[in-house]
Amino acid sequence: MTELRSVGIVGLGLMGGSLAWDLAERGLRVLGADRDPGVVAAARADGVVAGELDLDESPYELDVDVLVLAVPVRAMPELLRHLAPAIPSRTLVTDLGSTKRSIVAAAEGVGLGDRFVGSHPIAGDTSSGWAAARAGLYRDATVLLTPTSTSRPEAIARAIDLWSAAGATTTVVDAAEHDRRLAWTSHLPQLAATALAIALDDATLSLDDLGPGGRDTTRLAASSPEMWTDIALDNAETLIETLGSLEMRLADLRRALTVPDEGRVRGFFSRGRDWSRGGHC
Amino acid sequence: MTELRSVGIVGLGLMGGSLAWDLAERGLRVLGADRDPGVVAAARADGVVAGELDLDESPYELDVDVLVLAVPVRAMPELLRHLAPAIPSRTLVTDLGSTKRSIVAAAEGVGLGDRFVGSHPIAGDTSSGWAAARAGLYRDATVLLTPTSTSRPEAIARAIDLWSAAGATTTVVDAAEHDRRLAWTSHLPQLAATALAIALDDATLSLDDLGPGGRDTTRLAASSPEMWTDIALDNAETLIETLGSLEMRLADLRRALTVPDEGRVRGFFSRGRDWSRGGHC
Repeated sequence: MTELRSVGIVGLGLMGGSLAWDLAERGLRVLGADRDPGVVAAARADGVVAGELDLDESPYELDVDVLVLAVPVRAMPELLRHLAPAIPSRTLVTDLGSTKRSIVAAAEGVGLGDRFVGSHPIAGDTSSGWAAARAGLYRDATVLLTPTSTSRPEAIARAIDLWSAAGATTTVVDAAEHDRRLAWTSHLPQLAATALAIALDDATLSLDDLGPGGRDTTRLAASSPEMWTDIALDNAETLIETLGSLEMRLADLRRALTVPDEGRVRGFFSRGRDWSRGGHC
Repeated sequence: MTELRSVGIVGLGLMGGSLAWDLAERGLRVLGADRDPGVVAAARADGVVAGELDLDESPYELDVDVLVLAVPVRAMPELLRHLAPAIPSRTLVTDLGSTKRSIVAAAEGVGLGDRFVGSHPIAGDTSSGWAAARAGLYRDATVLLTPTSTSRPEAIARAIDLWSAAGATTTVVDAAEHDRRLAWTSHLPQLAATALAIALDDATLSLDDLGPGGRDTTRLAASSPEMWTDIALDNAETLIETLGSLEMRLADLRRALTVPDEGRVRGFFSRGRDWSRGGHC
């Protein structure tokens, strides 16, 4: 923690903005950039951002200890390419994206492999924008760190320090394994919640018609379409597989109800309950 | 409320037991029955149930103002048939089942149509049994009442009084429309949550691997397999339709990701978000 003094954050939405709040509260100098100049002004007025990070001035140098890219997943490669010449070798570059394989490949591709370590904080909610950002979003959260094949040990250590300053704990995982795992544990629940919301809309039923269980199951449908379009396209290959698996399970039940086969119907619900209890089936 | 003095409850699980707690607190005399004699003893020891409702003694008369059947959905018809000769014409008979068409038909079939009004309280959680029962479960809940074609107005008025005593509000709906509506708003979310849990289990992922969003989406998978096997088989015809609709939505997205068709992927997430915001698409 001793060496972290300045952090540049590109994208002051829910995720980037909340990190800015945390780091400013810890006394770090936070510089910010956002495609909406009004957001940077608001973050300065809130006393969180000390100054604007100028991404277009050339020649320039992004003279910060850590540069955090908090923009949509599919905007990252182009942003990395644009910024690469300006990033000093001592600077840790990280991102907050929900998929990691393509960003790690992009960092390696533009020669930043040594100073890049991806971050995926398992935190956030369905809100978005600077207005939703707040201190404490990452407290007690797990952050998955995905190094490149050439990340320097000091870069990894600095990423751990960064998240420690925000109250989170870190785990290092391989980027490809990260994407496979998150396709199941995060992306597929999102797709299921949205598909369910659309099926209910088709049946002319609204959120107000649901009880607490239906509300929980569809809660994720409120998430940002922009963010999730990016994630789904970036992780499409694995998501196609996960969607097929969920469709198969629903079709199995549909056929068991058509027979009807009471044992198979019971087996369906029992297996779900056992999984919820942490058992294996 | 003036005339409600005694209530018999058959089945002292989460739903029947919680109603017993509420009514006993309001000073009503609650008689209870359960397939497990230890449960009746526990409910008496807790000071909730004043005495045992004897369902097998013959000849007998179930001399209560209200008789509540709180047993699994598919056990209801046989129970109604068994009890019908013992139920005085002045007694309101109701149930707490999550499907209503078959129970309404069964009540009519055994000649109880005049004194039967079905109840479906939109309340409860994934717990079960007397140990989970507690006062207040129905406070501010909505209870859907489904009369038969011959329910007497006094029977409907008494059902409204019963639920008012538990702090709930009531709405009268047709049984067939109830089952269609609940297939979408309650049963399909349950099936989606369980199917997702099984897909995750197939991928060797556990509940511990999920973030808050995935946990919400799969929460219902913990529900009672016994209860849900009954509901699914009882409402199979409509559920087959709802499952097909959800499968179609997932398959649409899978195909859009395969192309990939960015516009269609974005449309999928946008439509879910619009639905969450109460808009129409």
